[in-house]
Amino acid sequence: MLLVPPQVAPFQPPRRTLLGPGPSDVYPSVLAAQAKPTLGHLDPLFVGMMDEVKALLQYAFQTRNEMTLAVSAPGSAGMEACFVNLVEAGETVIVCRNGVFGERMRQNVERVGAHAVVVDAEWGKPVDPQAVEAALQAHPQARFLAFVHAETSTGVRSDAQALCALAKQYGCLSIVDAVTALGGIELRVDDWGIDAVYSGSQKCLSCVPGLAPLSFSPAAVEKLKARKTPVQSWFLDQTLVMGYWGNANGSKRSYHHTAPVNALYALHESLRLLAAEGLEHAWARHAQQHQLLLAGLTELGIEFLVEESGRLPQLNAVRIPAGVDDAAVRTALLNDYNLEIGAGLGALAGKAWRIGLMGYGARRENVALLLQALAEVLRR
Amino acid sequence: MLLVPPQVAPFQPPRRTLLGPGPSDVYPSVLAAQAKPTLGHLDPLFVGMMDEVKALLQYAFQTRNEMTLAVSAPGSAGMEACFVNLVEAGETVIVCRNGVFGERMRQNVERVGAHAVVVDAEWGKPVDPQAVEAALQAHPQARFLAFVHAETSTGVRSDAQALCALAKQYGCLSIVDAVTALGGIELRVDDWGIDAVYSGSQKCLSCVPGLAPLSFSPAAVEKLKARKTPVQSWFLDQTLVMGYWGNANGSKRSYHHTAPVNALYALHESLRLLAAEGLEHAWARHAQQHQLLLAGLTELGIEFLVEESGRLPQLNAVRIPAGVDDAAVRTALLNDYNLEIGAGLGALAGKAWRIGLMGYGARRENVALLLQALAEVLRR
Repeated sequence: MLLVPPQVAPFQPPRRTLLGPGPSDVYPSVLAAQAKPTLGHLDPLFVGMMDEVKALLQYAFQTRNEMTLAVSAPGSAGMEACFVNLVEAGETVIVCRNGVFGERMRQNVERVGAHAVVVDAEWGKPVDPQAVEAALQAHPQARFLAFVHAETSTGVRSDAQALCALAKQYGCLSIVDAVTALGGIELRVDDWGIDAVYSGSQKCLSCVPGLAPLSFSPAAVEKLKARKTPVQSWFLDQTLVMGYWGNANGSKRSYHHTAPVNALYALHESLRLLAAEGLEHAWARHAQQHQLLLAGLTELGIEFLVEESGRLPQLNAVRIPAGVDDAAVRTALLNDYNLEIGAGLGALAGKAWRIGLMGYGARRENVALLLQALAEVLRR
Repeated sequence: MLLVPPQVAPFQPPRRTLLGPGPSDVYPSVLAAQAKPTLGHLDPLFVGMMDEVKALLQYAFQTRNEMTLAVSAPGSAGMEACFVNLVEAGETVIVCRNGVFGERMRQNVERVGAHAVVVDAEWGKPVDPQAVEAALQAHPQARFLAFVHAETSTGVRSDAQALCALAKQYGCLSIVDAVTALGGIELRVDDWGIDAVYSGSQKCLSCVPGLAPLSFSPAAVEKLKARKTPVQSWFLDQTLVMGYWGNANGSKRSYHHTAPVNALYALHESLRLLAAEGLEHAWARHAQQHQLLLAGLTELGIEFLVEESGRLPQLNAVRIPAGVDDAAVRTALLNDYNLEIGAGLGALAGKAWRIGLMGYGARRENVALLLQALAEVLRR
């Protein structure tokens, strides 16, 4: 006797406007790209498309790194891929922590059996380069400096260029979380000397969630090749994945895992749109929409959590006004306006909203909708 | 100065008939489901859909296991999730190896610092329960028995029911690779006493590639909860993912990673179609199409690699006839008929073709196309 099958109807999601911390609004042509016919993951046409994804990712990251690809899993697997591949047990990593994702980096360091030296900054503040330099001086055995460029939990931008310069000065490789940064603010992997960087598909690329762009500098690849122990994860082992993404100098693609074919169609399309717009234009568009949002929220008496100099245009953390019911407002926006904004995370739960203007979401009509809907709900 | 963006056209894949080892032909409504509007991953409507996915997976696996979910990554990450969560360093795992994926299990065991006792069977033969029992007797310290139900590399079915009974008899938890099995042949997780099982979305479920269904028995969950050390992977740590999939007894969903929202729409739809067809009908359909293929290939003088009793209906490994150019035939099928079949893997490279009749692919028109196209190409 078999268990009885559940009776389930086809799922019909409504069209929401996604102005939370991600997933962001997805480009219509990206959604459509996913529905194209699935190819075999070793089909020459698909392999050719993966080569284009690589070239487009190199542009988005502003790098010539040969090892540039998309991990077949979400951004948190991209983070893990950096740590399990580059860091070996017993090594020391300086981890900057000014929000949820810095803390997650620390946990990743510990799970590879390495030693994390944490440099804390207050939630809502950027990483302090002086504190980082003090840690680098105090821990000359450190091999890595890890930090989050754009902290999604607080809406803070840290000075990636300055931090990577410090890493280089003290003989460390830099590991940079660019999940929310990529495509939304200036990011120059080669010019800034970033050694390992990862992102997510569902933020300023406005692709569907589930993929993690990744790039390793030649120095990071050297470190990977010089490992004394195998990478603890088989799935994330970039020495195996390298062959699959065809980085082995034109040698035949070797089978590693089955690529998420249709998700990669979506990433291809979203990166293509970013390249067609041009990075400078995308960065400027995010900055402009942020200014419009700032002006409108200020009129509503809503304050930003982050000082002006450290604000991310694509992720606006604002204080929930006194006496306002956090969940009731977000629920009203969702149910009555099909509009999603984000709750506070961790230490900011109940205290902040996070308003994302990411990728395709960073448009004037979205800012207008949000300002009007929020004003109406707050007046109730 | 920024690097110049590459000029890339939208990708337009042709419609192929996918009769390789996976990805299989995807149901049209599954492709369409992916293109539906992206919801936030904490949206109540999306959370409700995840609950339906869980119920549908329980049906597909024939289990009441509370911990039943889809890992947000391909099947090989599902394999890794089983080993990194359940097995701790120093423990012993009996690993049955009769193809590529048994060997991959062994590598996973070693990467968690555990000891793998390998029970080999010839490629193309099922796992031998007598040899397994001898290993269980010789290694009383073993905590796990791991094997592949349906070996994708050779087209062989092993007797999962008998092997799980042996595991139970000798006090081991069973870890079963059901990547190619799920939906294609009889699989009864509860009745057979399977403790940990994983699959892939892109085989007999005929969903897009990228997700790994997973289920742990209460005994496996106990083992997980009794761990002395943290799970080495943060991304695959099921003690964290449990909260995300809402298994924590109705408590609020906690944020772990951003779910691959649109891929889960696709899985929901493919599982819904399987439940609507009914497992018995799906199993019978695979068996019927296999018989048609067998009859037709026999007429063409093409022999099966596997003895009749051990053949998988959904993955037909056949000998490449003497004097036939492997790659030339596959290329002709792909280019002239938009028809993909699989090459041999590992020890069978150049010696075998793998013809998949999986899920939506297991249809009479596909068998007919393959037989006619292959006959024409072999006559050239």
